[in-house]
Amino acid sequence: MTHYTEILLTQRPDDKPIGPQLFEVVQKAIPSAGPGQVLVKQTHMSLDPAMIGWMSPNTDSYIPPVALGSVMRSSGFGEVVESNHPDFAVGDRVMGMMGWTEYSLNNGQGLNKVQPGVDAETALSVFALPGLTAIQGLFNVGKPKAGETLVVTGAAGSVGSIVGQLAKAEGLRVIGVVGSDEKADWILEELGFDGAINYKSGNLEEQLRELTPDGVDIFFENTGGPIQQHIFNRMNSFGRIVVCGMIADYVSASPAPGPSWIRVIQKRITIQGFTMPDHFGDVPALLAKLTPYVMQGKIQYRTHMLEGLESAMSGLNLLLSGGNRGKLIVKL
Amino acid sequence: MTHYTEILLTQRPDDKPIGPQLFEVVQKAIPSAGPGQVLVKQTHMSLDPAMIGWMSPNTDSYIPPVALGSVMRSSGFGEVVESNHPDFAVGDRVMGMMGWTEYSLNNGQGLNKVQPGVDAETALSVFALPGLTAIQGLFNVGKPKAGETLVVTGAAGSVGSIVGQLAKAEGLRVIGVVGSDEKADWILEELGFDGAINYKSGNLEEQLRELTPDGVDIFFENTGGPIQQHIFNRMNSFGRIVVCGMIADYVSASPAPGPSWIRVIQKRITIQGFTMPDHFGDVPALLAKLTPYVMQGKIQYRTHMLEGLESAMSGLNLLLSGGNRGKLIVKL
Repeated sequence: MTHYTEILLTQRPDDKPIGPQLFEVVQKAIPSAGPGQVLVKQTHMSLDPAMIGWMSPNTDSYIPPVALGSVMRSSGFGEVVESNHPDFAVGDRVMGMMGWTEYSLNNGQGLNKVQPGVDAETALSVFALPGLTAIQGLFNVGKPKAGETLVVTGAAGSVGSIVGQLAKAEGLRVIGVVGSDEKADWILEELGFDGAINYKSGNLEEQLRELTPDGVDIFFENTGGPIQQHIFNRMNSFGRIVVCGMIADYVSASPAPGPSWIRVIQKRITIQGFTMPDHFGDVPALLAKLTPYVMQGKIQYRTHMLEGLESAMSGLNLLLSGGNRGKLIVKL
Repeated sequence: MTHYTEILLTQRPDDKPIGPQLFEVVQKAIPSAGPGQVLVKQTHMSLDPAMIGWMSPNTDSYIPPVALGSVMRSSGFGEVVESNHPDFAVGDRVMGMMGWTEYSLNNGQGLNKVQPGVDAETALSVFALPGLTAIQGLFNVGKPKAGETLVVTGAAGSVGSIVGQLAKAEGLRVIGVVGSDEKADWILEELGFDGAINYKSGNLEEQLRELTPDGVDIFFENTGGPIQQHIFNRMNSFGRIVVCGMIADYVSASPAPGPSWIRVIQKRITIQGFTMPDHFGDVPALLAKLTPYVMQGKIQYRTHMLEGLESAMSGLNLLLSGGNRGKLIVKL
């Protein structure tokens, strides 16, 4: 093996389906680690909803879009195969932003060693972006209190499923919004949510009213879409809305409007957006907060595994359609 | 004089113009103060935008609507004419929620003595709801920092004009949105704002872009209406939106939608609603913060005086049309 494969973004999705037509697959010679560098062979690549935002042309967002012609951005898990860096040795298992590539060169910044005993699936499904995002958003933005009611959209997704389980562990009533009956069953039966709504069926307003008899104190928003207004209408006084994702609107040139701010006054609601890149400096503290929940067995997850680097190109569509069952991971 | 006049709310406005048809004017015998009571002769009545919200049928807001058949709710200034309360003496000048009435009986709760040297106009224009609301919203919600840019709607209104002057005193760049060229001149020339936009004329997007070259850090929202989206589009990263009023939408049965939350994520924006009744316990601290600005001559105001209790009935329309020039006060 002297060559490896990487995938470049060559077109923006704008309302078009995501697939191979947006990318170019290229072969390159495997490089050697230069001074201070680490060469990582990626074994597992994470596909996350935020990536669809990173592909869009918006230059006014929290991080620049992936430049056309460069390797698609993603986080991953791999093994150090060559190191000229004092902190890393050959054989170390590491996580970091690696991109859609089989090999990546790294100067050690943003590359983190994975604790022994934590496998690649757990590392990417819990101890990477999903778990960090859930901890930051729920505790530092949502400020949950026992006895309150939380509604989370994308509740079977990588972030939403952890948010709901953390909130249950904190003594909240937790209702999840999902896109299939199978996912509704999973969050009710496996994750212990108090209620589930399949946004594709039934009267959403009525289901929400029945499942949130005391209203909604925290709305953890991962998806956008028409159910947003219905949940907003149930917000209690001093309610908090954590705006974490809007996957339903990322690729739309004209996103749907949001709720009127009249109720924001009437109920003294706080709506707050956040993204993890602002909080990478807090990762040690966030991991310290997350770990006990995992150790106590309170965080279940499931992975949806794709095979081979090139499967990522149409695999991203599963996040848009909600067709994935569990954390989407590409095994290389 | 053995009788006095009061005005009852008998119909809700819902999209209809506000005027005498919504009210009933009644004569009553002047009562005597019972044990522990104070009888106040009101001399000046405040008309505030929030009152239009209080007239609407929404039972799900921060305070109940004014019940049909009861005295219209308002704050006012007056003189104690009879007292069986240890804290008040005949001749004391007081402020409080008095309602649309020439005389009001009060048990002393919520009735505050006005400092000597502060006249009725200053008391109602600065040291009552307008100034308290401006201080609470700007400092405790907006969290201004010198060098930032603030845009305030309803900028010639009772709250907006104080918000803008406080922000100027704190070293912010301040742009005001108003509804007439006369008001634009007033906030620029008398109040010292850095820029003014008459939302009824010109290209709002272009004017905003020119006046906020560094974007917007704080958006203090008093009005709602189509300019909301334009200001929202200029929000900087970590911007704060203080939702204080939405007068353009209070009487509408179907308020216009708000901005999509996509930018809330991209810019990590916080949108927070607040109302003063939640902070009445903080009034001493808020007044302590406000007073030095007033003493240093940094808070200018102007009053728009109406004559006679019954002028209030159509006077409220001035707040909807923006026809008032300055703090609207009814002199009894």
